[in-house]
Amino acid sequence: MSDRTVGVGMIGYAFMGRVHSQAWRNVAAFFDLPVTPRMRVIAGRSKDATEAAAERLGWDEAVTDWREVVGRADVDVVDICTPGDTHAEIAIAALRAGKHVICEKPLANTVPEAEAMAAAAASATGKSMVAFNYRRVPAIALARRLVEEGRLGEIRHVRAQYLQDWIVDPDFPLVWRLRKDKAGSGALGDIGAHIIDAAQFIAGQHLVGVSALTETFIKERPLAEGSAGLAASGGSGRGAVTVDDAALFVGRLSGGALGSFEATRFATGRKNALRIELNGSLGSLAFDFEAMNELWVSDGGRGFERILVTEPDHPYVGAWWPPGHGLGYEHTFTHEIKDFLEAIGQGADPTPSFADGLRVQRVLAAVERSAADGSRYTTVED
Amino acid sequence: MSDRTVGVGMIGYAFMGRVHSQAWRNVAAFFDLPVTPRMRVIAGRSKDATEAAAERLGWDEAVTDWREVVGRADVDVVDICTPGDTHAEIAIAALRAGKHVICEKPLANTVPEAEAMAAAAASATGKSMVAFNYRRVPAIALARRLVEEGRLGEIRHVRAQYLQDWIVDPDFPLVWRLRKDKAGSGALGDIGAHIIDAAQFIAGQHLVGVSALTETFIKERPLAEGSAGLAASGGSGRGAVTVDDAALFVGRLSGGALGSFEATRFATGRKNALRIELNGSLGSLAFDFEAMNELWVSDGGRGFERILVTEPDHPYVGAWWPPGHGLGYEHTFTHEIKDFLEAIGQGADPTPSFADGLRVQRVLAAVERSAADGSRYTTVED
Amino acid sequence: MSDRTVGVGMIGYAFMGRVHSQAWRNVAAFFDLPVTPRMRVIAGRSKDATEAAAERLGWDEAVTDWREVVGRADVDVVDICTPGDTHAEIAIAALRAGKHVICEKPLANTVPEAEAMAAAAASATGKSMVAFNYRRVPAIALARRLVEEGRLGEIRHVRAQYLQDWIVDPDFPLVWRLRKDKAGSGALGDIGAHIIDAAQFIAGQHLVGVSALTETFIKERPLAEGSAGLAASGGSGRGAVTVDDAALFVGRLSGGALGSFEATRFATGRKNALRIELNGSLGSLAFDFEAMNELWVSDGGRGFERILVTEPDHPYVGAWWPPGHGLGYEHTFTHEIKDFLEAIGQGADPTPSFADGLRVQRVLAAVERSAADGSRYTTVED
Amino acid sequence: MSDRTVGVGMIGYAFMGRVHSQAWRNVAAFFDLPVTPRMRVIAGRSKDATEAAAERLGWDEAVTDWREVVGRADVDVVDICTPGDTHAEIAIAALRAGKHVICEKPLANTVPEAEAMAAAAASATGKSMVAFNYRRVPAIALARRLVEEGRLGEIRHVRAQYLQDWIVDPDFPLVWRLRKDKAGSGALGDIGAHIIDAAQFIAGQHLVGVSALTETFIKERPLAEGSAGLAASGGSGRGAVTVDDAALFVGRLSGGALGSFEATRFATGRKNALRIELNGSLGSLAFDFEAMNELWVSDGGRGFERILVTEPDHPYVGAWWPPGHGLGYEHTFTHEIKDFLEAIGQGADPTPSFADGLRVQRVLAAVERSAADGSRYTTVED
Repeated sequence: MSDRTVGVGMIGYAFMGRVHSQAWRNVAAFFDLPVTPRMRVIAGRSKDATEAAAERLGWDEAVTDWREVVGRADVDVVDICTPGDTHAEIAIAALRAGKHVICEKPLANTVPEAEAMAAAAASATGKSMVAFNYRRVPAIALARRLVEEGRLGEIRHVRAQYLQDWIVDPDFPLVWRLRKDKAGSGALGDIGAHIIDAAQFIAGQHLVGVSALTETFIKERPLAEGSAGLAASGGSGRGAVTVDDAALFVGRLSGGALGSFEATRFATGRKNALRIELNGSLGSLAFDFEAMNELWVSDGGRGFERILVTEPDHPYVGAWWPPGHGLGYEHTFTHEIKDFLEAIGQGADPTPSFADGLRVQRVLAAVERSAADGSRYTTVED
Repeated sequence: MSDRTVGVGMIGYAFMGRVHSQAWRNVAAFFDLPVTPRMRVIAGRSKDATEAAAERLGWDEAVTDWREVVGRADVDVVDICTPGDTHAEIAIAALRAGKHVICEKPLANTVPEAEAMAAAAASATGKSMVAFNYRRVPAIALARRLVEEGRLGEIRHVRAQYLQDWIVDPDFPLVWRLRKDKAGSGALGDIGAHIIDAAQFIAGQHLVGVSALTETFIKERPLAEGSAGLAASGGSGRGAVTVDDAALFVGRLSGGALGSFEATRFATGRKNALRIELNGSLGSLAFDFEAMNELWVSDGGRGFERILVTEPDHPYVGAWWPPGHGLGYEHTFTHEIKDFLEAIGQGADPTPSFADGLRVQRVLAAVERSAADGSRYTTVED
Repeated sequence: MSDRTVGVGMIGYAFMGRVHSQAWRNVAAFFDLPVTPRMRVIAGRSKDATEAAAERLGWDEAVTDWREVVGRADVDVVDICTPGDTHAEIAIAALRAGKHVICEKPLANTVPEAEAMAAAAASATGKSMVAFNYRRVPAIALARRLVEEGRLGEIRHVRAQYLQDWIVDPDFPLVWRLRKDKAGSGALGDIGAHIIDAAQFIAGQHLVGVSALTETFIKERPLAEGSAGLAASGGSGRGAVTVDDAALFVGRLSGGALGSFEATRFATGRKNALRIELNGSLGSLAFDFEAMNELWVSDGGRGFERILVTEPDHPYVGAWWPPGHGLGYEHTFTHEIKDFLEAIGQGADPTPSFADGLRVQRVLAAVERSAADGSRYTTVED
Repeated sequence: MSDRTVGVGMIGYAFMGRVHSQAWRNVAAFFDLPVTPRMRVIAGRSKDATEAAAERLGWDEAVTDWREVVGRADVDVVDICTPGDTHAEIAIAALRAGKHVICEKPLANTVPEAEAMAAAAASATGKSMVAFNYRRVPAIALARRLVEEGRLGEIRHVRAQYLQDWIVDPDFPLVWRLRKDKAGSGALGDIGAHIIDAAQFIAGQHLVGVSALTETFIKERPLAEGSAGLAASGGSGRGAVTVDDAALFVGRLSGGALGSFEATRFATGRKNALRIELNGSLGSLAFDFEAMNELWVSDGGRGFERILVTEPDHPYVGAWWPPGHGLGYEHTFTHEIKDFLEAIGQGADPTPSFADGLRVQRVLAAVERSAADGSRYTTVED
């Protein structure tokens, strides 16, 4: 392992904090890195919970103020795993303090916030990256490689869905992800952002305009623990859902492809079905995260080949296990951290950058404008 | 078999004529029908080809003028298997002559034609039906039954794609299906019409508005044999493609569901992937015609059940073979003819009716208007 | 259509009679044949039922004695669709009468019967064929083609299962297929014979020895209508099952491959899962009849290609519908009849011959001997 | 995390050492354990390689003699990840030294060794476990739960295959896994042992007799680095393969089920296809490790449900990520270590025990005896 170490500080210890910690703790056991991470400090609002998380997840220290993390000399990298409403403030402070920053997606809750973050990144000495982890699914990285090599020819169709069902029950509580002030948007920003980024990444084209519909099927939900601060809108303990439950749109991409996108949390029976299909003049490919070790590829002949993306020459895979011994969800984060550390070590710019994150944010904004404006075709700002 | 016979006359002997003939020839061997069809006469423009078709396909006689079929006393049923530009004239004449009429889809090339046909059907003594054969895939009929029984609860999402790839090659010739004057539209009317009808049928809801994109990827193609009458637009033997290669839209359905639809002939590697997925508050279902004997159903639990739709209690299936001995494409037509003959025998109105066909036509028109008008959300006429 | 006609007489009108009739009725509409079949006469024991079958299935006449069919001058082909205990007598009589004979599988109930039939066939002027219809599944015919072309290299493994579940219920009645005197054996001869023939056909190797187990899980069953002639063995209306419910064996093939075979009617949830996988030094292929239009092929790389066997250049497929418009169970019989008629017309010997049927019979016998003799490795007679 | 710690010493640092280390390093971050593991020491023959492994994999120290590990006071648990020929000596020494022992599979290279190990385990104060990790695939643990609950009824069929292809190339070198003196057997002990254990575990029945075939397709291979000590048997640098390439057998299980098993390294295109299917009187289930997060379950109706085994109430899954966010190969080891540590903490006996490992060893021996003795049905010793 490299003697050059980088100290890491993480903000947040919930779902994303747990999985990022897993990546930090294991990345050096599998990849030869130019710099070795040290898990210095984790920050959270609750002292007890943060200390417990630190011990369990492997962080040296726990603090209750993110500013302390940003200010520490032994922290080189700040990893932001908090809800979207706090990303801009933390990331900009960390960049100004000369830190490298990796920030969960979506980059921010609004385009202006994302612009400020991208501007801060552009003028910073530290490296920055937005954590669209699905780019690091080996099958998706392989898909990108095939497109780059021209195996699909000219891309005509990009078809992407992200289908979940965790809030189908109308009594599921009003968690922070269902409140616009915390989450920015609903299915759109949470999972729609992933398919927008992943599809643009694979296709090597970006959305230039969209015609969109959004919908909130369940307008009110029981207040959750943790959402108790909300004023109940309808009497006994229910509050308004202020984000979309589903967002779908058609659009055009910069290279001439047509796009069809759909993000929903109401696809009963679909758990984490991030699906992408591309059709080109020479071939096609299809992916579904529910079978994440498989990529389906057509060379234009009579069918699709199910490639088990577990061969040593597949992206990231050589570091792990023999063929057929698949990887899981968490490995996408290990790969992301690996690429981030390599960029830091080599002085290169990691991707997806904050500018890439801003681009996705602008698509999200165009979707919302189109939906609000009679689904009219709405140009994505440059 | 019933002693009541109905004489049948068919117009057209190409792809649709062949498969309809197969249905007429075999339906009485498998289903107990109130009336027994007699294959009296087939009409086509070429005398030799029509006579050869008659012998091969099992028709008693061949004629070269469709009017002769419509005028014959021994013909009770007229089956229209010609391109869309001729549907209105033939169907209206046949209905006025007191015949029962089954007409290939899409019902017509324009809304006014379809309106005239629906009006003729409404005032006719004969029965009429538009041949959206995919309603008679056992798996699709079963899907409809499940929705009708409330197994899916309230439908939130309708997701339908019809993906083919037969014109990906830019040197594929300019056949009649690529000319607006003959076919009305391209992928939209040819295959998009099928998923619109099938999805509306299963969901029990109809599209009320759409936001659409259409595209023609290959603008000119070599003139085909049979398209030789065309003026070459660009010099040596090429002509303009005047229909869409792909059409995609999002929309809203009458019962509150959101719809996402896509029809394309440029999905390399997809041969006849008519796919429909519905998500409801209690369950979901998914279908792909490339595996036509399977229906995937979720009851809202942890996954989808792959139902092999080959059980005796499944729609249409009891007439055929034991469980697991699947059916093919042609059987959808046999089922359609069976239902049509039953309706005739019972004096009932078969579905889908010409009014149903008109409704689909209006969706096609709304898609074209939306695509022409900045993808704006466009109301489907009532 | 050819002016040379051959008169056809069929013995039996149950399941196999219905599906063979479907083939005779339709084959000339899809294939250019050197001889055209005429459906002259069908024979069955019940006068009423046979006459009803004749009308429904399209036969000119009905008779109640199979000898009448064999003796008629206007019958050139005899099609035997009766239980196995009658095959030898009928087939030998028909061959001696100079008829062409197609006989359902298994060829006979015993090796001596099969030997007599093969001997009769060898010295007959008529052509003969045993109806292993699964050879005519396009995917299986394509599989054979790929092996023949050397695409799989040297075959190392042949893995075949035929899984059904129609008698899992212990109250399913004692039908003729569960009685040794009528059926010869149980799962072994009924469905095991199919996978033995199909696997040997695809591999181009035959089984030379086997080590087998058989089992009868449910020893007694309610007497069925039609089994009323049986003496109840255990009191009130139950009779002994005298055939195997399941048969499984490992074995060696003539070309050095290892085989693993399993036939059972107790695979709950499997309806007609005839599955074959071959592994060779260069590639592999896999098939499951429950998805009969698909063949999975590996070229030794990273996975399997799902080939939709619906392309014009695939075996038999060009006569039918466009790509992606699948075929069903019955088409395997149409293909079989087509090949049989072509052989008759060309004076060629159709396959599988009675000698091929005898070879399968000898494997069945070796399986039974091995199972009876401590599963010892038992040589298949030459 | 618990204050009770157990010191762990590992022998071996190759494939199994890497994946076991990953489990030790992470188990406490996800599971609440009664004892917390400390990764004290790793042993290997090469000093440099062992030290590098220690640093990379997270062990405090590296030593070159396994006896040192067994003798250390700060080591409570010995984890044996070496080839099979060393298992007995190390395990027995460790048990005698009062350590808890987890040992890679197969338990030993011979039945006498395994018997000695089981005897040592029975009289030891430490706990012992054999590392059949596939029992800890959540889908397999769920399968066991379903059988235990009676959901499948009486089990009739157990069908298991373990298909790999990593030595199809005849120029693949003669590694230790291809030498009987090191590995005991070939595909049989390496992967056949896994399906024997997993199938017996799920079915709750054990094999009582087998009829088997084994084969070595490629008799000689190039000497590998590391196999240089071998005398070349055929001249320039090739040595004899002394183990089976494939082993297949049919057999009977203690509860009346029939079994069909096949293990091969010559299934071209199959990478790690550990497949198990059980058919019972009420239902069936099917699994394939190449899609390890899925279990297919039939309730005897019309098909199989694809259960995504990622729900909180599925075995082991609640500790990880939300539904649909799948696990990978390595997690089976984390689950194994978790169960082992729980047993240690609670003073319970972990499973599979050395006695269970011995039982598998006896099946392997019966397979070899049967194969050597004309595939005769051979009783598995008790």
